[in-house]
Amino acid sequence: MNIPRTSFPRIVIIGGGFAGVALAKKLSKQEVQVVLLDKNNYHTFQPLLYQVSTGGLEPDSIAYPIRKILKDFPNFYFRLADVEEIDTQKNKVKTNIGNLKFDYLVVASGSTTNFFGNTEVERHSMAMKTIPQSLDLRSLILENFEDALLTSDLNERNALMNFVIVGGGPTGVELAGALAEIKKGILPKDYPDLDTRLAQIHIVQSSNCILKGMSAQASAKAEDFLEKLGVNVWKNVRVTNYDGKTVTTNTDLTFETATLVWAAGVKGATIKGLDAQDLVSRGNRLLVNEFNQVKGYNHIFAIGDIACLVSDEFPHGFPMMAQPAIQQGDQLGDNILKLIENQHMEPFSYTDKGAMATIGRNKAVVDLKRWKFQGVFAWYVWMFVHLFFLIGFRNRMVVFVNWVYNYVRFDREARLIIRPFKNKHKV
Amino acid sequence: MNIPRTSFPRIVIIGGGFAGVALAKKLSKQEVQVVLLDKNNYHTFQPLLYQVSTGGLEPDSIAYPIRKILKDFPNFYFRLADVEEIDTQKNKVKTNIGNLKFDYLVVASGSTTNFFGNTEVERHSMAMKTIPQSLDLRSLILENFEDALLTSDLNERNALMNFVIVGGGPTGVELAGALAEIKKGILPKDYPDLDTRLAQIHIVQSSNCILKGMSAQASAKAEDFLEKLGVNVWKNVRVTNYDGKTVTTNTDLTFETATLVWAAGVKGATIKGLDAQDLVSRGNRLLVNEFNQVKGYNHIFAIGDIACLVSDEFPHGFPMMAQPAIQQGDQLGDNILKLIENQHMEPFSYTDKGAMATIGRNKAVVDLKRWKFQGVFAWYVWMFVHLFFLIGFRNRMVVFVNWVYNYVRFDREARLIIRPFKNKHKV
Repeated sequence: MNIPRTSFPRIVIIGGGFAGVALAKKLSKQEVQVVLLDKNNYHTFQPLLYQVSTGGLEPDSIAYPIRKILKDFPNFYFRLADVEEIDTQKNKVKTNIGNLKFDYLVVASGSTTNFFGNTEVERHSMAMKTIPQSLDLRSLILENFEDALLTSDLNERNALMNFVIVGGGPTGVELAGALAEIKKGILPKDYPDLDTRLAQIHIVQSSNCILKGMSAQASAKAEDFLEKLGVNVWKNVRVTNYDGKTVTTNTDLTFETATLVWAAGVKGATIKGLDAQDLVSRGNRLLVNEFNQVKGYNHIFAIGDIACLVSDEFPHGFPMMAQPAIQQGDQLGDNILKLIENQHMEPFSYTDKGAMATIGRNKAVVDLKRWKFQGVFAWYVWMFVHLFFLIGFRNRMVVFVNWVYNYVRFDREARLIIRPFKNKHKV
Repeated sequence: MNIPRTSFPRIVIIGGGFAGVALAKKLSKQEVQVVLLDKNNYHTFQPLLYQVSTGGLEPDSIAYPIRKILKDFPNFYFRLADVEEIDTQKNKVKTNIGNLKFDYLVVASGSTTNFFGNTEVERHSMAMKTIPQSLDLRSLILENFEDALLTSDLNERNALMNFVIVGGGPTGVELAGALAEIKKGILPKDYPDLDTRLAQIHIVQSSNCILKGMSAQASAKAEDFLEKLGVNVWKNVRVTNYDGKTVTTNTDLTFETATLVWAAGVKGATIKGLDAQDLVSRGNRLLVNEFNQVKGYNHIFAIGDIACLVSDEFPHGFPMMAQPAIQQGDQLGDNILKLIENQHMEPFSYTDKGAMATIGRNKAVVDLKRWKFQGVFAWYVWMFVHLFFLIGFRNRMVVFVNWVYNYVRFDREARLIIRPFKNKHKV
């Protein structure tokens, strides 16, 4: 790879998600060379992907060009690359566009959907971790409604209008709520010749509560909100298979659906060469110490979803969410500079800023450290926080305009099948 | 196709472009059943596609769900369908989702890119008539710059940074201007490690002026604007071939480029069963009389780009642009109702509202009937008119926010490779 060697130490960051970008920003004006590698040329604001899937936001407003985030930083290089292997012996990263030596390596490769080995579910279900996946889901939902008009077989029509979401975490809950609002506010107008009351939204959770990372109060209220919106919440039910038509579970319950969204888990996106069994925790995450150093290495780090940093509070590692990622990236910036200067690094210290989820119009749940609240005000807080954390003034403005419009008009206008999903698979 | 027969006559419209939508709106509250067929579920505002290709606007803001345009109209049906054939004997339309009988048929199928039979150019060049095509071009432009970083072969690097646009109509001119602004304002910041001054933008026009549908004054000023922006304007040059690397012309001139955009012509998108040689004009358009009736038929009409309506002013048919399409759709609405009631139809009468094109920041040309002007004010007029004709309040707001942002910040933020183009072709 065509990157000049300078007298500054070279820090290679794999991944431009929350963690990688936070780190790169921190290192921006220091005497180091930073090379950021990502397979996309944009940073994705993952918490709003479900709004792309449901036509509430355009994909471009929750993505931001990585080159632009870092354009004023000297000694900064971005390369669009798939990292194929890490050679920890020769301190080299192998990619589809060539190899690159590093002095320090930071793995911030994030996570991917975890199907827990169930390949049939994987083949037939939709995931929602990336922008293309979210657009595929948007297309599929709309294509299903168009197809529902064409069939006179009632079972088939129902299956096309049913949605099963597996996983009661924030992604699943937010998607279920958005679909319920579409069912109520948009489908009857768009499809007057279809009995859209028959559309069913199911959310299936293997444990005994939804939003289990949040307070009992938030969980109960979220369930209450979902039920008010007409979503069927199934607890203590585990999906065992899906053949593209029928969802089977570990109980008698089955669902007929053309759309299964799998939001039941993620796993670390490990990279060849740094995936030996003793390096990896449950959930396929790289074990790191309190300085985010990968086990056994002084100069190789992992941050964000891919890193499993165990603490008293989180014996299985920090939750795979934006806040730990941002804070790890930010603090590692200081630590790498200390390491370079042979100073002592500081152990990672986490500030819990709380958690939140939105279920629908005027319906959100917020857990702060000392205050838990739900409802309209929580919904405003949720919107404000998400706008604030979006990168880029234009993105904020566009998202704001969309939200105001959607709120006032009970609408979601981006219901466009730009790249058909079913046709793609037929071809 | 699953559409109930009522006592109202059924009018089938093929195509939800400017013409088809204008007609459907006109018929909305009348005693007719309207069925609109389109292969997309959205209407595309084609005049702004070049801004999607160049990262200035998100695709979702220039597309609008057809179902939503027509949601309050009784007796209206939309179906997402590819029309495969028209059976003029049995008054039936054959589609990929079944057949449909009609009482009246209106073909508003628009136009496609015309490569004039040059299949090699067609295989290697980019078109810009649809949203997916515009997104592909956006991806390709950005992928080329990423690739330019990777090669040490200077010729290859230059080819990756060169753009050849064939056709000096509004599309070609607007795209060339936008690329020139990207070269000047964005590339040096995004690619500090690349000598982006070497990027060249060429526009190739076979006749002796650009924007030949407009006044000599507009044409000359547009050329002047392009040259100020650093675009190379080649007149009286015809592209003869392109093998993916080298563009050859009917002169000694050749270009090395990885990107050829073909904006040199369009042709009517005729449909099997209504494409007999005697029905079709030069440019593959359906010959219609002054009531937009297809030659030889009383109950089959064509409007918009697909229709060749010859007049004294336009001996080869009206220009293939939005205004004739909208006006034909609008007036045909009245005429069909008259025909149903056995009244005399009115011949199509065209109101020339003028023409305009934008070349770049503060640079546009406007031809009105009695007033031709260029420059800053023309640019404001251009923006106002385009905002006004966009469908949907949300789209207008989002486009407005983007334009203000882009103007103030000299920026275009949607430079995202969401679906890679080169990789798609490699797979």
